[in-house]
Amino acid sequence: MKKLFSIVATLLLMAGAASAQELSNFNFGRGPQLVSPELKGDSVTFRLNANYATVVNICGAWMENPWGAGEPMHKGLNGVWEYTIATPAPEIYTYWFVVDGVKTADPLNVFVQRDGSNYLNMLLVPGERTENYGEATKHGTVSHRWYTSSILGLNRRLTVYTPYGYEENPKKKYPVLYLLHGAGGDEEAWSSMGRAAQILDNLIEKGLAEPMICVMPNGNPNQAAAQTLGLPQGEFDWRKPENRTLYVRSLCEEIVPFIEKNYHADAKPAKRAIAGLSMGGGHTIQASTLYPAMFDYICPLSAAGAMTAEDVAKLKKAGVKLYWLACGNTDFLWQGALDLKKVLEEGQMDNFEFYESEGGHVWSNWRLYLNTFAQKLFK
Amino acid sequence: MKKLFSIVATLLLMAGAASAQELSNFNFGRGPQLVSPELKGDSVTFRLNANYATVVNICGAWMENPWGAGEPMHKGLNGVWEYTIATPAPEIYTYWFVVDGVKTADPLNVFVQRDGSNYLNMLLVPGERTENYGEATKHGTVSHRWYTSSILGLNRRLTVYTPYGYEENPKKKYPVLYLLHGAGGDEEAWSSMGRAAQILDNLIEKGLAEPMICVMPNGNPNQAAAQTLGLPQGEFDWRKPENRTLYVRSLCEEIVPFIEKNYHADAKPAKRAIAGLSMGGGHTIQASTLYPAMFDYICPLSAAGAMTAEDVAKLKKAGVKLYWLACGNTDFLWQGALDLKKVLEEGQMDNFEFYESEGGHVWSNWRLYLNTFAQKLFK
Repeated sequence: MKKLFSIVATLLLMAGAASAQELSNFNFGRGPQLVSPELKGDSVTFRLNANYATVVNICGAWMENPWGAGEPMHKGLNGVWEYTIATPAPEIYTYWFVVDGVKTADPLNVFVQRDGSNYLNMLLVPGERTENYGEATKHGTVSHRWYTSSILGLNRRLTVYTPYGYEENPKKKYPVLYLLHGAGGDEEAWSSMGRAAQILDNLIEKGLAEPMICVMPNGNPNQAAAQTLGLPQGEFDWRKPENRTLYVRSLCEEIVPFIEKNYHADAKPAKRAIAGLSMGGGHTIQASTLYPAMFDYICPLSAAGAMTAEDVAKLKKAGVKLYWLACGNTDFLWQGALDLKKVLEEGQMDNFEFYESEGGHVWSNWRLYLNTFAQKLFK
Repeated sequence: MKKLFSIVATLLLMAGAASAQELSNFNFGRGPQLVSPELKGDSVTFRLNANYATVVNICGAWMENPWGAGEPMHKGLNGVWEYTIATPAPEIYTYWFVVDGVKTADPLNVFVQRDGSNYLNMLLVPGERTENYGEATKHGTVSHRWYTSSILGLNRRLTVYTPYGYEENPKKKYPVLYLLHGAGGDEEAWSSMGRAAQILDNLIEKGLAEPMICVMPNGNPNQAAAQTLGLPQGEFDWRKPENRTLYVRSLCEEIVPFIEKNYHADAKPAKRAIAGLSMGGGHTIQASTLYPAMFDYICPLSAAGAMTAEDVAKLKKAGVKLYWLACGNTDFLWQGALDLKKVLEEGQMDNFEFYESEGGHVWSNWRLYLNTFAQKLFK
């Protein structure tokens, strides 16, 4: 048996990539493999083997304008282009190469996130800021589940995180965080770019957050699921305000009951939290004003939205345990967030906290916010 | 409220991609968007905007040698490179561009699969062969779950498919298919490249397959999970036969009990099936010979492996309900599969079926095999 297994292994090795599809990921006979990105001492080096390219640039989230032309890489005699930076502050940075004008992924880096239709390589610089962004020792379960929305006329996908130990404790009731993405995102945005499963795993393992279920729906009323699935679009364009309201109705009248029926969820306002970024922050605000008694924890992130004194009074009456508003001080919505802060302060909203961070409308802030407010929920 | 939502939307639109990370997926002011790939009439056209590139090639799974240099694309006056083919036979084809020697994804195509560290665009040509590869109407749940392996000394991730209706029927017991990937793959290979969830969703919806749980573990004894998670490697190199045996032991002594404890699984040999491709076919054969009474359905795919007359006799005694061996007739393991067929036929294995397909060691065959044998299980 062992001998024949070895023969099979040898055959597999000999066959190489030419005819063996599952083997295309191996480095048969291609010589020592390059490393990119390489964190070494106080610097990071990026490399791309591109002997026939004329100009290779690199764009990265550490640059002042990552969406610009980028910085030139330098070609060595071996045909390998290199670019070295001083190690930036701890964070997850996305980056890409531009080969003769065409955006290209780093083929040497398996660490990838999806942003809409873009697959972007990541550089994780270790440090205190990122200590909860990598894999914890114990892992919750991340599921893609489908629910039926009569309001939107679609069978829709959502991502559900259940904490470590959930399945082994069927009688335990867990609190639920509803975590909403922004425009351009989908039901995988928080788990891919937001590192939600890693952040919750780490916080729960350290005893810094309560074990909780986290539900990440698709916030685009015209989508059944991420466009990567190729499903036909529904009829409700997200840019129309009345359709965003339909989504908020589906969230509160369909998704919340679906979760509370199908998971070991503690179906009390004190055990429900809602948080969302940008457009999802708008959803959060609207859900809190249309359904003031539903969520005791309300966290709009990098968002502006309309609230009246009456809305604040209704929320106070319902008994909000935490109203946590966060924004970056260079965000284009900063003034809108300050306006909302003013309404909440003038109405003397109970348990109101305003969290100001550096920077703008970016995932580095949204990961920071989740890592911060998740420690304040359900306590 | 509506008015302020519109203001926020306008702000978001004005801000554009420069500072708004969640918006990077939009096409603000970039003019009419190109389409690639475009299926139209009897042809498919691929397009890439690359005005500064010198040579752009395309490689695709419809070519005789997709791993070669590919075919040249042609540059139009607008800087867009094009390549048109007659629509190939219905199948899912992966493809990529090579821009001045550098492999590049098609930025216009959101339909992507992951093969190890490679993200590859897909072209799905509709037809009878592929009718179960797209999304069904009703969807099962796909989860990433973790189990502890004492044998391998790792906390390991596996992918679990539960069929539509599973959660609503907690008292129903479901049969379980253990579906194993090949060398170079991981616990997402079957759900990404193999379209396992779509195939099972469609077959179950059409009444062609029994509703079943499908467990897709990571078959590399040195991996806790796909390398995309960046976890440190374990100590057991997959290339050593004794380590492959350790994995098979973990599968049968740890994963099967874990699934049967944590899911509504029917824990009888008649309700257990095992199938695997290439290296996973080797695992399938070894699991069946080391644990002959465990699985009543055994399906090695594109695999060769050692079996003795005694092994066959033991399986016959245990009462196998289906032994389904499949291979492509140009596979480099074709002769090995024929050798195994001979041993099984000489031992007069009960319920033995040999399935010969065209082609070689490729995912188009493995999807076809799953779509075929899944209809024969648990009946």
